Amino acid sequence: MLSLTKITAIRKKYPALLLNGRNTMVNLNELIQQLTLEEKAELLTGGDFWHTRAIERLEIPAIMMSDGPSGLRKQEKESDHLGIYGSTPAVCFPSSAAVAASFDTALAQKLGCVVGNECQAEGVALLLGPGLNIKRSPLCGRNFEYYSEDPVLAGQMGAAMVEGVQSTGTGSCIKHFAANNQETDRMVGDSVVDERTLHEIYLAPFEAVVKEARPQAVMCAYNKVNGTFCSENGTLLTDILRSAWGYQGMVVTDWGAVKNRAVGVRAGLDLEMPGGSRRGIQQVLDAVAAGTLTEAEVDRAVYNVLKLVQTGIENHHPDAVFDRAADHDFARHIAEECAVLLKNKDSVLPLTEESSVALIGDFAAAPRYQGGGSSHVNSAYISRAVDCMPKGMSWTRGYDQGSDTSDRTLLEEAVAAARKADAAVILAGLPERYESEGVDRTTLEMPANQNELIEAVSDVQPNTIVVLYNGAPITMPWLDKVAAVLEMYLPGDGVGAATMDLLYGKANPSGKLPETFPQKLAHTPSWFNFPGENGITEYREGVFVGYRYYDAKEMDVLFPFGYGLSYTSFAYSNMTVDRSRMGEGETLRVQLTVINTGKLPGKEVVQLYVAPPAGMRRRPVRELKSFAKVALQPGERREITFELNARDLAYYEPLLHDFYTPTGCYEIEVGASSRDIRLRKEVSFTAERPLPRMFTEYSTLADVVSDPKD
Amino acid sequence: MLSLTKITAIRKKYPALLLNGRNTMVNLNELIQQLTLEEKAELLTGGDFWHTRAIERLEIPAIMMSDGPSGLRKQEKESDHLGIYGSTPAVCFPSSAAVAASFDTALAQKLGCVVGNECQAEGVALLLGPGLNIKRSPLCGRNFEYYSEDPVLAGQMGAAMVEGVQSTGTGSCIKHFAANNQETDRMVGDSVVDERTLHEIYLAPFEAVVKEARPQAVMCAYNKVNGTFCSENGTLLTDILRSAWGYQGMVVTDWGAVKNRAVGVRAGLDLEMPGGSRRGIQQVLDAVAAGTLTEAEVDRAVYNVLKLVQTGIENHHPDAVFDRAADHDFARHIAEECAVLLKNKDSVLPLTEESSVALIGDFAAAPRYQGGGSSHVNSAYISRAVDCMPKGMSWTRGYDQGSDTSDRTLLEEAVAAARKADAAVILAGLPERYESEGVDRTTLEMPANQNELIEAVSDVQPNTIVVLYNGAPITMPWLDKVAAVLEMYLPGDGVGAATMDLLYGKANPSGKLPETFPQKLAHTPSWFNFPGENGITEYREGVFVGYRYYDAKEMDVLFPFGYGLSYTSFAYSNMTVDRSRMGEGETLRVQLTVINTGKLPGKEVVQLYVAPPAGMRRRPVRELKSFAKVALQPGERREITFELNARDLAYYEPLLHDFYTPTGCYEIEVGASSRDIRLRKEVSFTAERPLPRMFTEYSTLADVVSDPKD
Repeated sequence: MLSLTKITAIRKKYPALLLNGRNTMVNLNELIQQLTLEEKAELLTGGDFWHTRAIERLEIPAIMMSDGPSGLRKQEKESDHLGIYGSTPAVCFPSSAAVAASFDTALAQKLGCVVGNECQAEGVALLLGPGLNIKRSPLCGRNFEYYSEDPVLAGQMGAAMVEGVQSTGTGSCIKHFAANNQETDRMVGDSVVDERTLHEIYLAPFEAVVKEARPQAVMCAYNKVNGTFCSENGTLLTDILRSAWGYQGMVVTDWGAVKNRAVGVRAGLDLEMPGGSRRGIQQVLDAVAAGTLTEAEVDRAVYNVLKLVQTGIENHHPDAVFDRAADHDFARHIAEECAVLLKNKDSVLPLTEESSVALIGDFAAAPRYQGGGSSHVNSAYISRAVDCMPKGMSWTRGYDQGSDTSDRTLLEEAVAAARKADAAVILAGLPERYESEGVDRTTLEMPANQNELIEAVSDVQPNTIVVLYNGAPITMPWLDKVAAVLEMYLPGDGVGAATMDLLYGKANPSGKLPETFPQKLAHTPSWFNFPGENGITEYREGVFVGYRYYDAKEMDVLFPFGYGLSYTSFAYSNMTVDRSRMGEGETLRVQLTVINTGKLPGKEVVQLYVAPPAGMRRRPVRELKSFAKVALQPGERREITFELNARDLAYYEPLLHDFYTPTGCYEIEVGASSRDIRLRKEVSFTAERPLPRMFTEYSTLADVVSDPKD
Repeated sequence: MLSLTKITAIRKKYPALLLNGRNTMVNLNELIQQLTLEEKAELLTGGDFWHTRAIERLEIPAIMMSDGPSGLRKQEKESDHLGIYGSTPAVCFPSSAAVAASFDTALAQKLGCVVGNECQAEGVALLLGPGLNIKRSPLCGRNFEYYSEDPVLAGQMGAAMVEGVQSTGTGSCIKHFAANNQETDRMVGDSVVDERTLHEIYLAPFEAVVKEARPQAVMCAYNKVNGTFCSENGTLLTDILRSAWGYQGMVVTDWGAVKNRAVGVRAGLDLEMPGGSRRGIQQVLDAVAAGTLTEAEVDRAVYNVLKLVQTGIENHHPDAVFDRAADHDFARHIAEECAVLLKNKDSVLPLTEESSVALIGDFAAAPRYQGGGSSHVNSAYISRAVDCMPKGMSWTRGYDQGSDTSDRTLLEEAVAAARKADAAVILAGLPERYESEGVDRTTLEMPANQNELIEAVSDVQPNTIVVLYNGAPITMPWLDKVAAVLEMYLPGDGVGAATMDLLYGKANPSGKLPETFPQKLAHTPSWFNFPGENGITEYREGVFVGYRYYDAKEMDVLFPFGYGLSYTSFAYSNMTVDRSRMGEGETLRVQLTVINTGKLPGKEVVQLYVAPPAGMRRRPVRELKSFAKVALQPGERREITFELNARDLAYYEPLLHDFYTPTGCYEIEVGASSRDIRLRKEVSFTAERPLPRMFTEYSTLADVVSDPKD
């Protein structure tokens, strides 16, 4: 199955990848029969921090895994996981929060290709990403690694990324499965989620990626779900993932997520990571000896691990080249596609090179461009704003990102510079200590010194432009006073050049917010139940997460989901649907025309939402079901087509333990944000089966009479 | 125990009260020994719609019960419960929603005395009220019968009412126990409430009244709580009510709430109502025969029923007189104490008799003054506004309360009258069909024709005053356009005179809102879970009900809990606390001075809230713990004293299954509303026992280290 030449070449170039080679790998089931129980148990635990375990006797090789997906974090030494920043120099791409803002699946796929190729070049067989967890609260410390508060957006971006990675032969490992939506108590916490909410919101992105992109691996989360650790959760790892969704790949623990190894194997957990310990191996052996785990269950897990290894070896391209300079340029390009223009009063942006501009901010010289934790990349090149300044621009530091307290000298220098210039650009946002894996935020506020600086500068300079670098929503007490706000999220190591390209109109902002920016923390849906009490987090807001909550509560927000401006403008027209009635198995085709009505080329993200009818279950006002990003020259028009099926109209019905689309009239809405619906059409759906009602001896006659079955 | 003379007198005057007399009632346990099992089972079901069952063989009499508590609804015939308005002419007092707005426990107690005396005069031994259920949603159709969204206010008003009723010898039956907070699905619905929320919010008023006022009876609710019908719920009826709270009285079903009678008896349900059916009797006999119910359990219930009968007979005062005219005057007086002045721009109120006033509204001639359902009273006298008009006032109808659609003629007449006058007074609110037992509202809006009338009148008359008659919050789209709003709630049959007294300053409004008026329905705490789905209502908002929700969410409201204006003004000063540190068993004395700083006599409701420290459990920002209503002449000052104990600082801790006051710094706040805190002091509380933490093998070292026990 693997040619000798290929093996030899791999072994020569990447000894770490392949500890032992064979000219052809035998049939896996035959191979398993040759393994002793001890060897099988060993295979289910990694060989070291980043590799699977090799079995020298049978020439079974090991493969390497590395963190991602914002870039490669390959660690050469086994033990420096805690010394998290010591990895091979690589390229840091925009974080997933930023990538999601592009609403561009083709871009996500291309990013996957580039990172997958880097893995090939570095001998990494499995990329540990992307993270698909839903942003339940803007406080979650790891939100920058996740895509969205919306399961369709997270699922579509995730699937595109996985397809891209796996198109290079590298495997992708989606994570963290499941309901891992906070860092507080993450090793021990219990996420208590009702069945409907779990399927409709938190599992939905995983379901989409598993079904559409067939990732090679799934990483289970540290936490419990409804009382059972994910690493031992048969409902999640077997009943849902494999039986219901048809997943064929391997399940790996998050690093250190194993509690009882034997219980995990029985529940459907294949590989324990990191390796190097005998504890899990012994637990498996003891359990088989005690009869609480069968050897067939062990064989099933071994098969999944061996298949991953075999796939990794077979798909390896030893000639891949990691072109750091080219990839850095691509990182910059992505960053430009992800930026969200939140405000642009009187078209103060784009700037012209003729005007004098005061560039202000510590981030111009020491940029914030990635999050902290396991996704941290050791950038080979970093583009800083101070190195990309056009001639009319000068820089002052303004604040110290290591402090929350205003430095009077820095502040006054910045104000003086702003006063003299035609415009001021303040690079602001969250210092790295504000956002990291392992720690949740407790506030949405930026450091006080930055807020004070923005207030002070905008007092003297009406053309004050704030550029933000942050992984998750912040409050903007100064919003009314500034002329423009450009949200860059964490844009990767092309940060400086991308910022300048956007400010000066070499690139036109086309990102849309993949999450709501609330007015205040207390308004957030999970406010009463984040991060939970005594290690238990009840998801009491149910399916009403993100804009689903704010819309249903009719609450004002700072910026809504899907929102983002452009230097040009777009008009929507001519919406049609190809049918007014629809049933199970039928497809609805929605078409409309988008026109660039402004003077600059630009890209628009056309969003399709479905507004369901009232029914037995309370449902969101509207839900994103599809989106399309379209590039248009001034005056150009383009016809956009969406297709919807019954599942796109469905919710998860606990009585059926399945998704269900009730009979009724659904509104198909097309808009430029969740709160800027431009076009609407209705479609009537007729269900094949009525919803079962649960009657008891105490049900009222009114209940029975109102049942559609009668 | 009961003299022959007394019995004779009772029998002569009130044959319905006492079917059979005995010169002395024997010891109840001895009496029970003389009963056959059949007779015991019969005693546990009423004799007819309104009476307990008499046992002629042993000369056990029957007593009568009647609906309340807004006045007596005594039905002479057995079967006309459904013809709900055919009852003995009586006096309709303000509904409990209004009485709560008085924040005056002395007034509630006096109301109880008056109604209790009416019962005595009419031969009614047990008054079926007051209702203590918490206003979880403003939509609950029966909210007008309940006191508040706050358990302390509901508990204190309820206790005062029960004390008043029982001081006359009449028994009081508090209802509906428990978590009966909606009318939708009320016969079959399941209220799913976590233990903390149940005790801290929904059970708390019952606990307070049981412990403070010792009501003779408790009525169980129709619904289920956490899966078990209240009528069969041993946790509620025995473990909590009797074992934990020490309740010694009888438990009666809501009329028709029995499901399985034998299961109910075992759970602690004594009396089934209405009577007249053999179904429940047979179920008890069958269960005893089958061994699933013991005769001792039957005896326990029989004892409680006989004790209620005995108490009713012994406490009867045959000479009591129902003075309908005097009680009607008292109803008017209470109404004046309950009115809440919500807005009074430029002191447009009180009116002077010299000015010309256009009185507008159908309610002036056909007043709305009480709610629909079992509390409905057949008023002997009704004071209508049109019969109480001073000389400068003239009336036009304005709208038809039977319709939601504007009648152009009526509207134009009203506008014309308003244009000519110095001021316009519009009597508006909710028609009776909008609010009733048995049906929940689906909107907070008033009828469209009334809103249109108010808009049209205020367009031509700047001095437009809106007087509201409604049992629960409404929205006020016209609020900014009118000069004054006077909330009368459902003020009883003294409605017309009370309204005029308040408008013309013969009475000074002193009511405060016993509930939040939200800006819109979608803002309400239970919005996602009211009235539930498929017969199940999850109380997912937890303890965050009413102002506890709006304060924690930092949301704007239309009018906050505790809010209400006066024709005079009050200043708060000199707050002191008698200790800065406090422990279990110790009392904190809080004192302050209130001064009437205006020119008119008036009454102020001083409210004491406690703001707890942050801790393991999320707690409300502040909670009402005490209040005092004080009458002050202009310039007069009064010192107010409150006393707080550890329970006033506590929350219900599920790990302990009990209330618990954690160590920490508590802020004691005194104010004129929940959002108008005038004075603050801190007190440090030290708990005797630390809170137990539940450590497992997976608890982190950080958890263990942060445990206060270490």
